[in-house]
Amino acid sequence: MKIALDAMGGDYAPQAAVAGALLAAEQLAGRASIVLIGQADAVQPLLQAAGPAAAALEFVPASQVIDMGEHPAKAFQQKQDSSIAVGYRMLHAGEVDAFCSAGNTGAMLVGAMFTVKPVAGVMRPAIANFLPKLNSEFGILLDVGANAECKPEMLEQFAELGSLYAQYVLGIAQPKVGLMNLGEEEGKGTPNTQAAYQLLKVNPHVNFVGNLEGRDLFDDKADVIVCDGFTGNVILKMAESIYDIMNHKGMMDPFIAKFNYEAVGGSPILGINDNAIIGHGSSTPLAICNMLVQGFQMADSGIVDQIKATFKS
Amino acid sequence: MKIALDAMGGDYAPQAAVAGALLAAEQLAGRASIVLIGQADAVQPLLQAAGPAAAALEFVPASQVIDMGEHPAKAFQQKQDSSIAVGYRMLHAGEVDAFCSAGNTGAMLVGAMFTVKPVAGVMRPAIANFLPKLNSEFGILLDVGANAECKPEMLEQFAELGSLYAQYVLGIAQPKVGLMNLGEEEGKGTPNTQAAYQLLKVNPHVNFVGNLEGRDLFDDKADVIVCDGFTGNVILKMAESIYDIMNHKGMMDPFIAKFNYEAVGGSPILGINDNAIIGHGSSTPLAICNMLVQGFQMADSGIVDQIKATFKS
Repeated sequence: MKIALDAMGGDYAPQAAVAGALLAAEQLAGRASIVLIGQADAVQPLLQAAGPAAAALEFVPASQVIDMGEHPAKAFQQKQDSSIAVGYRMLHAGEVDAFCSAGNTGAMLVGAMFTVKPVAGVMRPAIANFLPKLNSEFGILLDVGANAECKPEMLEQFAELGSLYAQYVLGIAQPKVGLMNLGEEEGKGTPNTQAAYQLLKVNPHVNFVGNLEGRDLFDDKADVIVCDGFTGNVILKMAESIYDIMNHKGMMDPFIAKFNYEAVGGSPILGINDNAIIGHGSSTPLAICNMLVQGFQMADSGIVDQIKATFKS
Repeated sequence: MKIALDAMGGDYAPQAAVAGALLAAEQLAGRASIVLIGQADAVQPLLQAAGPAAAALEFVPASQVIDMGEHPAKAFQQKQDSSIAVGYRMLHAGEVDAFCSAGNTGAMLVGAMFTVKPVAGVMRPAIANFLPKLNSEFGILLDVGANAECKPEMLEQFAELGSLYAQYVLGIAQPKVGLMNLGEEEGKGTPNTQAAYQLLKVNPHVNFVGNLEGRDLFDDKADVIVCDGFTGNVILKMAESIYDIMNHKGMMDPFIAKFNYEAVGGSPILGINDNAIIGHGSSTPLAICNMLVQGFQMADSGIVDQIKATFKS
């Protein structure tokens, strides 16, 4: 199996990318190899400096880079030899099994939509993220930013996508799905969440447990938490700031430590025909390594085939 | 000055209400007196048990109680002698200067809308809450639940209402106002937040600092954070759960301690013709006391007159 990494993506690229790829190659030895995609001038000196360990990494040149501040769609179209465009082409051609990047999030989404494309039947793919749980490992939160506004049918599909990820990648049997809302009672919320509630209540693919409130993010009520990308993005970034504050204060314990994005890997794009993961902009080597391991786990689980099968029906 | 309290509101009423009223009467002695509204059978034995301290409290009987689970509008209309209905009638008649209740939030909102009514020019009143700040005392977040969906013009008005509260009640000169969004750049977000951004940019009553992300809630970027009631409610309840978790773990410091709702008082309803505050359902005597002190501060500040003056123009 081959897991590709955008060597030019992220605030500390290419150094952190190469260092993270080396860590992952060691962890995944015998199960998957890592393919680094990037500018030869930037990456090859780092590989030479790494010595014999670099032999485990495959290098694929890409002459261009999409910067963090660039307009996603424009940059993706114009820079066809960028590391992100080359990564998606290899993914789509089946030359690699997953593609990971800590680069421009918008360009990663554009590439997903235009190269590997949404699974037939999926209205809009979602970006998922992970929530530390007090009494278990992690829950899934989606969408966290791909779709600021969501129709009820989109929220319903996110519930299905999140359930499949929880089941096949995280190994949670019959994952409980909750709908983020401003009150527990049926009938609470916006017209969209009210309608989504009615769809989820009767959806046979989803173990729906009802509405959740902001206080239920870390408890046992649900393994999969569904919301629009606006709400999910606010939750995700608020959680990150809580971690930063606690870390700065030196107030750390195993639960708080799970808020550290470095520990979780990246944010998978769910509902597309291949395995793509978006990493945090300020990814460290550890974060890059965990994102690549997560890419392997996704590919190994066959999650995309499960999604295709579910949405075919 | 007279500050009224719904003696029947909250999970621990009437005991916590009476105990909180006694604490507040002591703190506000010489500046304001407390008026307790509730069922004589329930409240008077508690006043007798309190001994001479109870002499500072005025008691007004109300034969009915609106329970936490009741339908707000229906209950408010049918129970005209409930403590909430009596409280709002006294507030509207000018017999008290503020009315506070830890009871049914929806009924408190209904009473605000139908008895004291929105200020002329205010489209929809908002419920405000307080965010602990790392480098200052508190910021204001609104709306936190009165309006699940908000038109751009409503978000603009929340910015004005929050600015006035920050200025006149919290004493923050030229409060900075931020718009909660999923990215910092102008143009990010939903059609509603995009349009609200354009309105706020040119609003002369507001010191607008632009979009905020979930990670900016506790930093210095803004004193007033504007969002729809869905997002605000999720943020508020997530913050409460963070406090509960930290408290349970014994991980406490002065910043985390400010997340405790007991320390802040309640949630003022802004944009109505009088001072009304909604308390947390599980209010302790300390929370009740701080809500009453906050009611005094609101009345003392003349915030409602400032709001009326701003929205008249």
